[in-house]
Amino acid sequence: MGIAVSVLSEKEDDPAAQVTSLWEKGSLSSAKVLESFLKRCSVVTFESEFLDAELLARIAKKTKTAVWPDPKHMAMIQDRLPQKQLLESFGLPTAPFVEVASTGDAQRAFKEFEGRLVFKKRRFGYDGNGTFVVRSRTELKKFLSRLEETPDGGDGADGFIAERFVPFEREVAVMVARSRMSETTHFPFVETFQENSRCLWVKGPLPFDDAFRDLAKRLEDFLTEIGYVGIMGVELFERSLGPGVDARRELIVNELAPRVHNSGHYSLDALAEDQFTLHLKCILGFSPADVRLHAPGFAMWNLLGTHDKKPSWRLPRDVRLHWYEKQDNRRGRKMGHLNAVAETPEAALELLRRRRSDFDV
Amino acid sequence: MGIAVSVLSEKEDDPAAQVTSLWEKGSLSSAKVLESFLKRCSVVTFESEFLDAELLARIAKKTKTAVWPDPKHMAMIQDRLPQKQLLESFGLPTAPFVEVASTGDAQRAFKEFEGRLVFKKRRFGYDGNGTFVVRSRTELKKFLSRLEETPDGGDGADGFIAERFVPFEREVAVMVARSRMSETTHFPFVETFQENSRCLWVKGPLPFDDAFRDLAKRLEDFLTEIGYVGIMGVELFERSLGPGVDARRELIVNELAPRVHNSGHYSLDALAEDQFTLHLKCILGFSPADVRLHAPGFAMWNLLGTHDKKPSWRLPRDVRLHWYEKQDNRRGRKMGHLNAVAETPEAALELLRRRRSDFDV
Repeated sequence: MGIAVSVLSEKEDDPAAQVTSLWEKGSLSSAKVLESFLKRCSVVTFESEFLDAELLARIAKKTKTAVWPDPKHMAMIQDRLPQKQLLESFGLPTAPFVEVASTGDAQRAFKEFEGRLVFKKRRFGYDGNGTFVVRSRTELKKFLSRLEETPDGGDGADGFIAERFVPFEREVAVMVARSRMSETTHFPFVETFQENSRCLWVKGPLPFDDAFRDLAKRLEDFLTEIGYVGIMGVELFERSLGPGVDARRELIVNELAPRVHNSGHYSLDALAEDQFTLHLKCILGFSPADVRLHAPGFAMWNLLGTHDKKPSWRLPRDVRLHWYEKQDNRRGRKMGHLNAVAETPEAALELLRRRRSDFDV
Repeated sequence: MGIAVSVLSEKEDDPAAQVTSLWEKGSLSSAKVLESFLKRCSVVTFESEFLDAELLARIAKKTKTAVWPDPKHMAMIQDRLPQKQLLESFGLPTAPFVEVASTGDAQRAFKEFEGRLVFKKRRFGYDGNGTFVVRSRTELKKFLSRLEETPDGGDGADGFIAERFVPFEREVAVMVARSRMSETTHFPFVETFQENSRCLWVKGPLPFDDAFRDLAKRLEDFLTEIGYVGIMGVELFERSLGPGVDARRELIVNELAPRVHNSGHYSLDALAEDQFTLHLKCILGFSPADVRLHAPGFAMWNLLGTHDKKPSWRLPRDVRLHWYEKQDNRRGRKMGHLNAVAETPEAALELLRRRRSDFDV
């Protein structure tokens, strides 16, 4: 794309550090390191939202470097409490919630949500880490004792929120994006499947009906109203509001991610413009391409570690491997993913299910 | 793809050196450098066929490193004389030729080919460099005086060959490939258009008729018979053998390239498996995917330098840019290319023609 990409990370063998000659070693929490790095860049973006947003904003102002998405949006989204407040204030559907800073708060939440609720660490949660489903007094007690030990959730997470448990039929995700010139776009809605709170696979596109059309518009308007720049991953719960195939259904925003997202990795092989290209175009001030599918169906399968030995495989003939070159294999760790396209989402997923067994990861 | 790629080149700002942390500085003609580099690799391939093939073969044997394509094929193809002999010996259609090592040879060739012929340097020619079309006694004299000055063609090119001039209607190209397990495949046939002996654009696919089907099979068989491993670019002349749209036509091999090729760059955005991926799979012992087009038509437009100032552009919305990050812009230099897909090859080409004007290169 004619863009020289510098990477700042702590270890030489970090995935992104391996694919550029412009890698810089350093801690993302060091003001000195950030300042030296930002000085050398005209535009900066991030792969994780768990940075010190205030520090980043301050350094960016000092070095006059554009950081997109804006660190203020990183701050809002990295903390579940302002994120939920943001969703509510824009009328986006999301599960009812309360802040939990004490065992008293937790007990009140248990009552308010009628004994079926989810406690989530406000910050630094991922892949189910920091999420506690409570459906009984026993589970509540277990959570309360944990809360007494580390009231802030640990790692400076600033405590918890509690959400009413949503009895969903399936999980859905969508990538939305907005450019610096305020053009907005969205990818197809996809179904995502989690196993042990980790995304195992994604398939799509889901038929683009009125409910999705309406939500996509509301999400794009939301990005415009808050002045967001870049791509955003949106995870959703879908629950039916009655029996039968024609039943109306409800879409509830589970969480936002201010960055490229695992549920959008299919785009590398299924769309004419993938999420990484789209994100770069948005933050650099160029226009997104029309979303165009390479085939009627697509799927993505995460290669999650199942042991800690060195992974091995044969490169598959008919599906695409994206391997992250992480140095250590670990149980449950996302080591790479497989993408496939086919005549239907189901056929693409079935192909991946078969190919997964060729990988010893 | 889970492959750690090391790059050996002379300058830190060489295109491939910029996209890996495993760059090694050194001369490709130094035995010491090659030995040190090959020792660290399990498989080695090349982007240019103009290396010292004998040296490479010797070092590869010493370090027990697999080099694909085999240096013996590099040697045969880098020199037009054995390349033409190879084509003839396998009955592949190619223009009649003779070796030219002296002015006497050149004069005899002029007579034999009835005053319409092309002199080509045996080695190191590219983009029309080292190619001399002769259609008159005046042009012959000019070539003869050049030949007297540098009988070997310069740069150790080992002299010239002369070919009968082929009055073609259009130029055509195709990528063929063979894996280490002897699986063969080919991409669609495409039309290529040259301006000042440099490829300006490519469009395709050309309708896959019996003539192309037959030639594709013969080319794949050719790779199998010589034991070639990797991808090969094949440039062809097409001439009609009579008037009218149904006229039979002749396909004549112009030249071979034992590597990824400019005429195959469209594959990065038009095919499910691009030429670089295909080449890597072939040389690593994996199976090529079925060739699948993302759209009914595609095109590629080379961004050739028109001045020596710094290029500038806006990233296009609806076509894909591949910029090579070469350090200096120069008149006629391939600085990058644009790819597009559309409902027809012509529509894709037309889109690129319009977008090209947004680039100041």
